[in-house]
Amino acid sequence: MKHYIEKNAWKIIERGFNPEYNKITESLCSIGNGKMGGRGNFEESYSGKSLQGTYYAGIYYPDKTKVGWWKNGYPEYFAKVLNGCNWIGLKLVVGDCEVDIHQAKIESFYRELNMQEGLLTRTCKLTLNNNAQVEIKSQRFCSLHHDEIAALSYSLKVDNFTGPIKIESFLDFDIINEDSNYDEKFWDEVDVSESNHLIYNQAKTKKTDFHLGLGAYTNIEIDNKKVIHSSIDKRNKYISSTYNVNVNNKAFIQIYKKIVACSSFYYPTQKIKERVLIQLNDIKSDSYHELRTQHTEAWKQKWDESDIEIIGDIGAQQGIRFNIFHLNQTYTGKDARLNIGPKGFTGEKYGGSTYWDTEAYCLPFYLSSAPQKVAKNLLIYRHNHLQKAIENAEKLGFTNGAALYPMVTINGEECHNEWEITFEEIHRNGAIAFAIFDYIRYTGDQAYLEEFGLDVLIAIARFWKQRVNFSEAKQKYVILGVTGPNEYENNVNNNWYTNYIASWCLKFTIKSIETVQDLYPNRFLEILRKNNFDLNEVTQWEKIIDNMHYPTSEELGIFLQQDNFLDKDQTVVAKLDQANLPLNQNWSWDRILRSVYIKQADVLQGIYFFEENFDIETIRRNFEYYEPRTVHESSLSPCVHVILACLLSKDEKAYDMYLRTSRLDLDDYNNDTEDGLHITSMAGTWMSVVKGFGGMRIKNSRLYLNPRIPKNWNKLSFRLNFKNTLLAIQIGQTDISITNNSNNKINISISDQLINLNPNETKVHHL
Amino acid sequence: MKHYIEKNAWKIIERGFNPEYNKITESLCSIGNGKMGGRGNFEESYSGKSLQGTYYAGIYYPDKTKVGWWKNGYPEYFAKVLNGCNWIGLKLVVGDCEVDIHQAKIESFYRELNMQEGLLTRTCKLTLNNNAQVEIKSQRFCSLHHDEIAALSYSLKVDNFTGPIKIESFLDFDIINEDSNYDEKFWDEVDVSESNHLIYNQAKTKKTDFHLGLGAYTNIEIDNKKVIHSSIDKRNKYISSTYNVNVNNKAFIQIYKKIVACSSFYYPTQKIKERVLIQLNDIKSDSYHELRTQHTEAWKQKWDESDIEIIGDIGAQQGIRFNIFHLNQTYTGKDARLNIGPKGFTGEKYGGSTYWDTEAYCLPFYLSSAPQKVAKNLLIYRHNHLQKAIENAEKLGFTNGAALYPMVTINGEECHNEWEITFEEIHRNGAIAFAIFDYIRYTGDQAYLEEFGLDVLIAIARFWKQRVNFSEAKQKYVILGVTGPNEYENNVNNNWYTNYIASWCLKFTIKSIETVQDLYPNRFLEILRKNNFDLNEVTQWEKIIDNMHYPTSEELGIFLQQDNFLDKDQTVVAKLDQANLPLNQNWSWDRILRSVYIKQADVLQGIYFFEENFDIETIRRNFEYYEPRTVHESSLSPCVHVILACLLSKDEKAYDMYLRTSRLDLDDYNNDTEDGLHITSMAGTWMSVVKGFGGMRIKNSRLYLNPRIPKNWNKLSFRLNFKNTLLAIQIGQTDISITNNSNNKINISISDQLINLNPNETKVHHL
Repeated sequence: MKHYIEKNAWKIIERGFNPEYNKITESLCSIGNGKMGGRGNFEESYSGKSLQGTYYAGIYYPDKTKVGWWKNGYPEYFAKVLNGCNWIGLKLVVGDCEVDIHQAKIESFYRELNMQEGLLTRTCKLTLNNNAQVEIKSQRFCSLHHDEIAALSYSLKVDNFTGPIKIESFLDFDIINEDSNYDEKFWDEVDVSESNHLIYNQAKTKKTDFHLGLGAYTNIEIDNKKVIHSSIDKRNKYISSTYNVNVNNKAFIQIYKKIVACSSFYYPTQKIKERVLIQLNDIKSDSYHELRTQHTEAWKQKWDESDIEIIGDIGAQQGIRFNIFHLNQTYTGKDARLNIGPKGFTGEKYGGSTYWDTEAYCLPFYLSSAPQKVAKNLLIYRHNHLQKAIENAEKLGFTNGAALYPMVTINGEECHNEWEITFEEIHRNGAIAFAIFDYIRYTGDQAYLEEFGLDVLIAIARFWKQRVNFSEAKQKYVILGVTGPNEYENNVNNNWYTNYIASWCLKFTIKSIETVQDLYPNRFLEILRKNNFDLNEVTQWEKIIDNMHYPTSEELGIFLQQDNFLDKDQTVVAKLDQANLPLNQNWSWDRILRSVYIKQADVLQGIYFFEENFDIETIRRNFEYYEPRTVHESSLSPCVHVILACLLSKDEKAYDMYLRTSRLDLDDYNNDTEDGLHITSMAGTWMSVVKGFGGMRIKNSRLYLNPRIPKNWNKLSFRLNFKNTLLAIQIGQTDISITNNSNNKINISISDQLINLNPNETKVHHL
Repeated sequence: MKHYIEKNAWKIIERGFNPEYNKITESLCSIGNGKMGGRGNFEESYSGKSLQGTYYAGIYYPDKTKVGWWKNGYPEYFAKVLNGCNWIGLKLVVGDCEVDIHQAKIESFYRELNMQEGLLTRTCKLTLNNNAQVEIKSQRFCSLHHDEIAALSYSLKVDNFTGPIKIESFLDFDIINEDSNYDEKFWDEVDVSESNHLIYNQAKTKKTDFHLGLGAYTNIEIDNKKVIHSSIDKRNKYISSTYNVNVNNKAFIQIYKKIVACSSFYYPTQKIKERVLIQLNDIKSDSYHELRTQHTEAWKQKWDESDIEIIGDIGAQQGIRFNIFHLNQTYTGKDARLNIGPKGFTGEKYGGSTYWDTEAYCLPFYLSSAPQKVAKNLLIYRHNHLQKAIENAEKLGFTNGAALYPMVTINGEECHNEWEITFEEIHRNGAIAFAIFDYIRYTGDQAYLEEFGLDVLIAIARFWKQRVNFSEAKQKYVILGVTGPNEYENNVNNNWYTNYIASWCLKFTIKSIETVQDLYPNRFLEILRKNNFDLNEVTQWEKIIDNMHYPTSEELGIFLQQDNFLDKDQTVVAKLDQANLPLNQNWSWDRILRSVYIKQADVLQGIYFFEENFDIETIRRNFEYYEPRTVHESSLSPCVHVILACLLSKDEKAYDMYLRTSRLDLDDYNNDTEDGLHITSMAGTWMSVVKGFGGMRIKNSRLYLNPRIPKNWNKLSFRLNFKNTLLAIQIGQTDISITNNSNNKINISISDQLINLNPNETKVHHL
């Protein structure tokens, strides 16, 4: 836990430099716009601890898998999000001294991420080794208004120095992924050139042959007089506009750098350079400040859709805004080929690919906080990967169009390689089906089924049908050898969550088949034909639904995480010597596996998904059994516990868990923020607020709220976009006010009371 | 399955060259003497497929572990047996053409490993690209008489050529381990020098700093006239005596090369060179033929102790001798710091380290076929590693002197890194305890307990005591999260074999404590003190023994491999589409894991170890349940099945399985002989003959035989060294003859009839 970041409702502030935490601050201060982004690195050189990272959507590299012992079926590679061209770079040499905070004496330092406006700024005053004093003011952004544009402003006030200053404003592709398995560089040079004061750098990735081109226009004024570059310098995959100037004492240097980045993910390779140059030309006359205004306006609109306000708890307020800010930076939903990498544009770990996190944790945020097409694109992403998922299942021995979606992917192919995860954590298929259900329940968009959904559901149902086997001993269908959401168990039999969601998938698919048959009879026949579907398959599915084995304890009145779960030593977490925590840093893997301790919600994840199927006492018994055995060593764990704790009126537990999820990265709770942020768990934090404290549910196609905010909060406000109706909700300790900001009428249930809201009407309801 | 090797009772013969199988033949033709050895590579250059390998006992390198995702407790490195100095090397250039079978036209080719004498010979006739004809005759050996000496004879008859010939006789350390994880070379040069016509090459290993020095003396005669070398050539880690000669047509060149190899495993580093030079000097006057005679005499003695003769089945005969030959080459039992690597001196795979194979499969061979100290040294090896095993257990959270021996080791430290093996295949601890029991049962050497054994047993018992937990649900002690001998299951609960041997270890330790207390009361107190042992520990052990959970099926009357084993689909191997086999090459890992199929004896391994505790019908039921579900995809599997099949009079099954184990490498059954031979499974083959067809057991400290040889065998003969009594046993279809070749009297049970044998007496018994 670290507390060096100032608490502020809209800002992440580091006052005074903390070099030992610099990689953490870099992660926290990452900026992006859904198409590109990067860590909060300094523009000028920095020789201290840093992870230099700039990332561009959709561009990946299949790094050869690193594994001790090969097992049949392992993927050949692990797809990595690529660290790409460094566009922020400025090399500054004052006299004989390079500006480098690590080498200089720091007189003052202030770094600020303004989340409201999406601006990263810094001021710092240094004394260099040659006694020159420099005062840096920098600011930059990746434009949310125009997502191929980024810009920076950088000024330098030089004191106690007269003489030569060298400035290189560069574009550098000669960078390495820190997580490269074999220390390879992944970019090859394509075009390093200059024209009309612009520098241009295009490179392509090895193997995948992605091209990325960046053009930069640098504008430098010294004491308000424009300077022309002295030379263009080129090295391998590197180009700079270089300025050699002689300055008088107390010189003031102002640098503006505007860049455009285009890639072959969006354009034909041969058009990239042209697109970059045209766009650079388009914004040539726009000042930095004009570009910035467009950008901050776009952020204003984002916040109008997605802000959450918490009055009375500045830490919680900062935490939730921090999470929403990064969710909006990571995924804007414009392109169904993109998804939400676990680190977004903030780092390289976990390959930047798609996990089941998207469906299980992220979808609700985008459903409620963005136009409907954003969430829909997340679903279409999986439909686009359906054929690959079928091929993935075929590699594992499945037939007849059964699909197993990958555990980790960037292009639809599986690219992870721990057998216990990749091969066995098959419940991900369930979450992908559940997301379809969740989307339709929330938006009412039944047509999604005939458009895309049913194809996916049939393929998933076929997978489950083949993945179960009938146990003669139990006279039930069983699912052997799986890993559930709780990855502190591997290769278990009959994980309750997996069995439950498998059976649910079969049921939902049958229901969806009926829906499409009813509503879209022609499309239905087409879908049958396309999927070579025989309605007899349904009969087999029904047999499985009716005879699925669900491990339970009659005595405890709970579902069992897996067969024989009660054979474990039942000491609860609170009774453990706390020096053992976190377990994953203190215990060997086998010890964790055989222990009762739970990394993240597993049975409780199922209860969260399917809450309406269980009575409150069943939920309570399960929560009270599993919560004390959960160590929450996944960032995705606390949010589900918050929601259930709220439901069960366990206020203190809910609030504790909430702080843990909402400030996970801000406080570096797990000692790994330096690798990048936990983007997908941020959506979990959003869920904790809206579904937990807000008590938001969809019941019978209707929005339902059952709010219960923490005692120390004065007010909780959030927005919901529900079936194209924009609602602003304010929850106090004793009342709730809802404003309908749309032109639709809407009925809402609040704690089981029906409220009718006319367009633009506000109603206040006493709790 | 390949059948290009000629069947012969004493020889491995390749007639006509099979370049596509060259790596296989190289493995088969490996020679060694327990201290050094190498693959059957050609002496001259060969540019075709080959794994060049020369290995020296005890010299290893801790190669950085290659793993995808690190888990807490993983070892940092994997210890590899090192490919060391190539001493056989001769580079031959005739005119402008290098002698290289891969480049030449082969007129004739014959390669032979004479197992009786331990000699590898080859004759071949080549036409080179310059039309010169050369006839090569080569022979070499690693002296069994003097294990730091090796020698080769190599002659070249050159026809259709007059002109210059260049011969380099070299020592080369500039070699690479094929299995290096990061393509590193592991040797650094120390001393490359010449004196008195000898070349000397000493190198040291990176990290481990092992030094190895080789000296070579080359003697060349052309047309019976001695030639002096023209130059000494040195390169990085390479030195050669180079001969440039001009020859007349039909020249005959005879080369002898004698080498001495000494390492820091045996000598102080600064003494190595001296030891090499002194020994080379000692044998300077010995001719190749004199050295060879000493060597073949030593082999004669080995065979006198260990030969098995099978009359009437040349394939089985060749198979068993091949196995015995390699077992004797791999381990001679002179040094308790060495052990039996799974590939011996024949390849690099599996790191050349020690597995539980030693105790479970190899010990019986060495017990019966070598002086008692050989087997004892195998046991002492583990006692030497006791402290490391305690540290290994501590890393996994155990305390109070509990020991977990490593799954793979070369120096006592764990050096493997699949969690499902390293952390969970804990039954190895049981085999190490069982070996102590087996050794004492066979030799009667009770004193071993007070000398070494009890320390090890107490530490192992302490491990089991902490590794069980009490299941409130079952009201029994359980062992969760293990991998049994059947590695086609991972992380299972209550593997019957593991639970059984755990409980047995506790019982045997208690009994051993009593034995030492009775027989060696003073040592007993010393041992208690040294191990900080409290006799109350025994009470806890007894509670576990009395309340251990053993999964069983009442209905089937069998022990269950693990909890819930009967939930699996029960289709037997014979009913599978055979295109699925071998499973490990056709099925993904998860599919194998959840299947019922068994890689190697698991429940049956326990029944084999503890046969006397089960009635014959229980054994039959278990065999008949598990055998049809076993795919024998481990080389260690068939032998146990042979032994039980013999016991159950399943003659056909026994013979089928026997051929599979005895000719595993000769016929390349698993398509992996090219990596090296399956040394430890060779001991399993020996067990199949002696314990299977010979029906050998120890019952009440007495040798017991219940022979039953395959129908097509006329006679089976083997030797046993039982309690220092040397017995020669001949088993026919209807009678058995036993000769006592010692000066002791001995009583033997044959099929429950007692036979008394006086010294040097032979008795024939009708079966």
